[in-house]
Amino acid sequence: MSESCTSAVIPAVDISSNAGAEAAAIVLIAGSCVLGLAFAFWQYMLIKKIDLTLDVAAEEQLVQHDDAGAQGESRQEKLQTISAAIQAGAKSFLNAEYKICAAFLVVFGVLVLVLLGTADNCGNVPISGDIPEGSCWTDAGFTLLAFVIGGATSMLCGYIGMMIAVYTNVRTTVEATRGWTKAFNAAFRGGAVMGFALSSLALLVLFIVIMLFQIKFVDADRKDSEFVYFILFEVVAGYGLGGSCIALFGRVGGGIYTKAADVGADLVGKVEKDIPEDDPRNPATIADNVGDNVGDIAGMGADLFGSFAESTSAALVLSANSIELQRSFATMLFPLTVSAMGILCCILTSFLATNISPVKAGKDVEKVLKVQLIASTVLLTPVLLLISWLFIPNKFTFGSNPCQNDLPSTADVSTWWGVFICLASGLWAGLFTGLITEYYTSHSYAPVREVAKSSETGAATLIIYGLALGYKSAIIPVFLLGITVFASFYLVGLYGVAMAALGMLSSFSIGLTIDAYGPITDNAGGIAEMSELGEDVRNITDTLDAAGNTTAAIGKGFAIGSAALVSLALFGAYTTRVSNVVGVDPTVNILQPIVFAFLLIGAMIPYWFSAMTMKSVGIAAQAMVKEVRDQFATIEGIMEGTGRPNYERCVEISTKASLREMIAPSVLIIFSPILTGYLFGIHALSGLLAGSLVSSVQLALSASNTGGAWDNAKKYIESGELGGKGSECHKAAVVGDTVGDPLKDTSGPALNIVMKLMAIISLVFANSFANFAAPKGSRWAGYA
Amino acid sequence: MSESCTSAVIPAVDISSNAGAEAAAIVLIAGSCVLGLAFAFWQYMLIKKIDLTLDVAAEEQLVQHDDAGAQGESRQEKLQTISAAIQAGAKSFLNAEYKICAAFLVVFGVLVLVLLGTADNCGNVPISGDIPEGSCWTDAGFTLLAFVIGGATSMLCGYIGMMIAVYTNVRTTVEATRGWTKAFNAAFRGGAVMGFALSSLALLVLFIVIMLFQIKFVDADRKDSEFVYFILFEVVAGYGLGGSCIALFGRVGGGIYTKAADVGADLVGKVEKDIPEDDPRNPATIADNVGDNVGDIAGMGADLFGSFAESTSAALVLSANSIELQRSFATMLFPLTVSAMGILCCILTSFLATNISPVKAGKDVEKVLKVQLIASTVLLTPVLLLISWLFIPNKFTFGSNPCQNDLPSTADVSTWWGVFICLASGLWAGLFTGLITEYYTSHSYAPVREVAKSSETGAATLIIYGLALGYKSAIIPVFLLGITVFASFYLVGLYGVAMAALGMLSSFSIGLTIDAYGPITDNAGGIAEMSELGEDVRNITDTLDAAGNTTAAIGKGFAIGSAALVSLALFGAYTTRVSNVVGVDPTVNILQPIVFAFLLIGAMIPYWFSAMTMKSVGIAAQAMVKEVRDQFATIEGIMEGTGRPNYERCVEISTKASLREMIAPSVLIIFSPILTGYLFGIHALSGLLAGSLVSSVQLALSASNTGGAWDNAKKYIESGELGGKGSECHKAAVVGDTVGDPLKDTSGPALNIVMKLMAIISLVFANSFANFAAPKGSRWAGYA
Repeated sequence: MSESCTSAVIPAVDISSNAGAEAAAIVLIAGSCVLGLAFAFWQYMLIKKIDLTLDVAAEEQLVQHDDAGAQGESRQEKLQTISAAIQAGAKSFLNAEYKICAAFLVVFGVLVLVLLGTADNCGNVPISGDIPEGSCWTDAGFTLLAFVIGGATSMLCGYIGMMIAVYTNVRTTVEATRGWTKAFNAAFRGGAVMGFALSSLALLVLFIVIMLFQIKFVDADRKDSEFVYFILFEVVAGYGLGGSCIALFGRVGGGIYTKAADVGADLVGKVEKDIPEDDPRNPATIADNVGDNVGDIAGMGADLFGSFAESTSAALVLSANSIELQRSFATMLFPLTVSAMGILCCILTSFLATNISPVKAGKDVEKVLKVQLIASTVLLTPVLLLISWLFIPNKFTFGSNPCQNDLPSTADVSTWWGVFICLASGLWAGLFTGLITEYYTSHSYAPVREVAKSSETGAATLIIYGLALGYKSAIIPVFLLGITVFASFYLVGLYGVAMAALGMLSSFSIGLTIDAYGPITDNAGGIAEMSELGEDVRNITDTLDAAGNTTAAIGKGFAIGSAALVSLALFGAYTTRVSNVVGVDPTVNILQPIVFAFLLIGAMIPYWFSAMTMKSVGIAAQAMVKEVRDQFATIEGIMEGTGRPNYERCVEISTKASLREMIAPSVLIIFSPILTGYLFGIHALSGLLAGSLVSSVQLALSASNTGGAWDNAKKYIESGELGGKGSECHKAAVVGDTVGDPLKDTSGPALNIVMKLMAIISLVFANSFANFAAPKGSRWAGYA
Repeated sequence: MSESCTSAVIPAVDISSNAGAEAAAIVLIAGSCVLGLAFAFWQYMLIKKIDLTLDVAAEEQLVQHDDAGAQGESRQEKLQTISAAIQAGAKSFLNAEYKICAAFLVVFGVLVLVLLGTADNCGNVPISGDIPEGSCWTDAGFTLLAFVIGGATSMLCGYIGMMIAVYTNVRTTVEATRGWTKAFNAAFRGGAVMGFALSSLALLVLFIVIMLFQIKFVDADRKDSEFVYFILFEVVAGYGLGGSCIALFGRVGGGIYTKAADVGADLVGKVEKDIPEDDPRNPATIADNVGDNVGDIAGMGADLFGSFAESTSAALVLSANSIELQRSFATMLFPLTVSAMGILCCILTSFLATNISPVKAGKDVEKVLKVQLIASTVLLTPVLLLISWLFIPNKFTFGSNPCQNDLPSTADVSTWWGVFICLASGLWAGLFTGLITEYYTSHSYAPVREVAKSSETGAATLIIYGLALGYKSAIIPVFLLGITVFASFYLVGLYGVAMAALGMLSSFSIGLTIDAYGPITDNAGGIAEMSELGEDVRNITDTLDAAGNTTAAIGKGFAIGSAALVSLALFGAYTTRVSNVVGVDPTVNILQPIVFAFLLIGAMIPYWFSAMTMKSVGIAAQAMVKEVRDQFATIEGIMEGTGRPNYERCVEISTKASLREMIAPSVLIIFSPILTGYLFGIHALSGLLAGSLVSSVQLALSASNTGGAWDNAKKYIESGELGGKGSECHKAAVVGDTVGDPLKDTSGPALNIVMKLMAIISLVFANSFANFAAPKGSRWAGYA
């Protein structure tokens, strides 16, 4: 640190120099959030209007169905009993999970407070010794507040999503007796409530946090640096940490829950008792249906909530390094404006699906859903161009303060159009990644068909081909990511990478809508089966569900891609942060012993994590198998349909097992960066993060796509190809599908969280790590 | 480049200042090689003495066996016919493969010559313009020569290994009729011929190359720099490149061959025709036995040959950066001395197995083999301490020439005991990695038993548990590697990493002996089965073989660990090399756009490669299935044993398919570093290498161990547990074993070569890449 840094008083910037733009940004952000929430509420009202009474046309269909199981309850009653059971199961899981999450927020919150509060110096100010004692406690306290708010908001969003999903599923079943358009619209609207409520709430709460915190951190007593926003946004990053921690529990716990129930139900029901999927006699069938919501609604929602909160945090922290960007508060709010535009555009796009070009027949469903993604991407492109031009300065630089180290941006001067290219490359890379994922996992294309055909020589070749497909499917997405990283990093530095992540996520309201649509239609089908509705109804729900499977795969590719960009941005923000504190260059040189050693170890972490989660599914599934076998053995008349299975008990088993099993992998992910940071220093942590990032991307992509391909290979055979249901090929495909379940729904998607959470933890604790290490000067000399 | 660098004439060092030490080193190296070769020859003579006539005791055993198949030929004749068929098959594969290898050496050799010859400046000398035109052609020519010699030596070693293996297998069968000690000793001695011939030849040829080339590059007209050895050792690195290219073809081609024959033979023989393994009626059975040699003898031998040649090259190139190290030629030769000591110690250890504590019963076999590894490690430790103390200066530094950039060594001053710690940490990390691999893949321990038990709920759970086991098995080896990398890198810089690799490889004569022992006993069992010898004989060969399986897994863990160290050392040598030419710091900063983008892409390469090789096995196996089915359908009396199957045709199918399928993955691995280097520059290539290294390690460890665990889970069940042969559990385990085949014998071990070959290519072409890029100065500014 040069002498001039510690002594010079740098004049404060007039941050209200651009009041018009600021007002515009605030109106845009707050307005979009309010509009998004209103839109979600409106969609909810439309769903609420659906009449649950089965009408005459549906009663006629019922005649076609065999009457074997129609004892005691009428179908109308069954419909409501079953949907109530799913609702109760979902609620009981969420209550149990959120209790653990709340306890975690408290315990980890104390850790955050103590570790950040006891650090020697805070914020942006280089080590100089003239900071008043105890000043870190304020920052730590506000970080804690942001952390708790982030966690709580994520939980609230998850709760809303789950409740609306289990509210909509039975309504979709009923609407399916009334035709394609109504059924599709019900499910889609249910998804939209989740998608828009989550994105709007996430953005709105973050916006409120920033506006309130800035009263303390910007306007009051801290105008001691040109970089007035630095501490504010560092504190705000706690919001991302809170959201991300909940996402970890959501993804891991949810992933284990859903697959334990699924595998457990199948192993006893299908294999031992030879009863069909979703048969009401199977005690695990309600747990299985609850599981779909738990994994794909709560889990995916929390995952994308985390991505949004984290990429915004990363962008904010990085932008605080630029004098030009912070000349206007409107520019600082730019990351939020991007997301606001996303909400607006996605609202417009959604009318394409429900009103302008609605689903009229089965063949429309997949097309309509895919058009949603493409249309939002197309619509967002000029909008992002416009806001980049409006809110980003023509030219800007990073870190020109003599007390700051230069950000590792390669372009000396960044431009507004550079920012646009970052946003657009992220947006389009996301779409293409999704479409390639579809190519590798849909049975409309050659790869899955080839896997299906390999079942002719048995399960072994099917698995070999499936694993090879997964590995192969990573090639193009990784190239796309590489290009996006290079272009955005080159043009606008690490801020550009954060922008690429935000660009990719800008269409996430619609992405989440489609994602939530999946389990809703899946459940709708389950309810139709359990209530013994007609074949025509099942046909509609099955077609809606099949399209949902494909789009779920697209969503996963998307989530992985955005997670990679987010974690790189966070990683960059972390290195920038420590370099400001320690006063070393923000370089991460692999050719340092400690960095390379931890690069190796970091690349191993996703394997460790996958090993844990995959075995957890096995253990939880076996607990379920035991319970289901017990019930079949002890409950009288269960196979005849006269004895009622104890669904609640299975829900409880799945809930308990998943919550117990999610602890160990969570501990691994949360504490490996913390221990590395404190014990081995900031360089070791850089290696760990980089290694874990590059390794997670590949493993997540291949695990998800392998699983998706086996699932659809099975569906392809079930559609009558290669011998159809019950053939030797089908049996082989069932093996593949079961192996794929934990890969695609547990370990694969949870790796998103691995990358992101390790990086945001590092960012939030960066100051503390650096301070812990800094007094021991030799540590740096020794490792450098 | 500072002015003083280009103009100052730095006085040449008196390299003969330590004539006594030099003579000692030369005697040690040359002496060990000669002794090693003599020892190998003596072992060969001992095998040759074995009488192939079945004696009376064996004839009595024959009575116990059913006589169904004893038609036409006597057992004695069968024995010889079958072993001749295996010999002929092995020869025909090697001939075909080596033709392709020779063609490749010519074509790629021309590329090496042209690309290196047309570079602007050569060797160590910084860009200054005063280099005589065309001087690069000399260096390029000698590099080409070293390259061809390296490739040819590797092929010669592979040939010797294959020939001795197929010579010994039938002798082991016959000795098995004469008791445990004789049978074990025959197989072990066969392995020793391979192990010691290969290590001694590899070392001797390299030594001769250095001694001859130094006449040109050190003593003659190039004494224009203090760093007199730089160009010499750069040129010598061609030897490593040649060896490594052959290793690629050996591992990939061999891996595809062995598994195509294995899977093809099993799918028709065991599954469709229900005849046992190694039944002479199966036309693919000879190809299957040939395959064992092709994969585990030629493939593994070429792999370890490459590791040895490359780690020595890396050490030599890196040591040429140190003034103190090159004060004595004996010190420069130190990497070779380490390997020489390895040969001597391993000769001593081998007497433990054959004479001092021979195998007396089945239970001794595994112990005796494991003792070999432990004893050589223990014995080598003080020896390495002694030679470090003798040949390494008390203190030394790297890159103190003002024209040189500093090597990224963290210790300012390195010491002789630092070098010893590098060697010892590599040696012991190798042993522990091997033992942990055993823990995860042997059915004597909990992990494999748990996988076996999971087969109770079907093939799907077995596969889930097996994949999880593989992921988990990477944890400790990666920590061991991380610790080794950190310690050696920290103490002695990148030279230390090369030393750790050499330390790990120092016991490789015995490692290779044990490795080659595996297929010899496997074949011995096959020959016993095909010649219909008694059950007692099969019992002996089976027990010998089972122990070989476990030690093969140990060998694989060992090979992966050493490959990781070797490629890091080569990667470091590459960065040092380009930094000397381009004049940039030898840092690899992940926070450069191009570096991070290629780090991501590099981490994807092993997945791409695995996808290709796994599918290749599938394709080749299907060609084999077709042929075997055809033969069963068209050859009269084949099932009755009266018609002779066309073994040769199956050998040809496997040969052709494997050679055709090995092209695409080889092109990927050879050309990705070359294209990246020329098109995207040296920084991009650094990212690619680092990404591919850290990703390959994890994937290779988990693939090999997953496959090994499934193999042994099957064997565990076959031993009578969980229902034994033919049970539902066994069927599930057979599926796992088949999936594991390409993982453990094709894609997994070939990833060793992926890491190493990409790095040595980068090192050899470093000068050319840097020169190609250097004139375009903006390229560096832009990416920096």
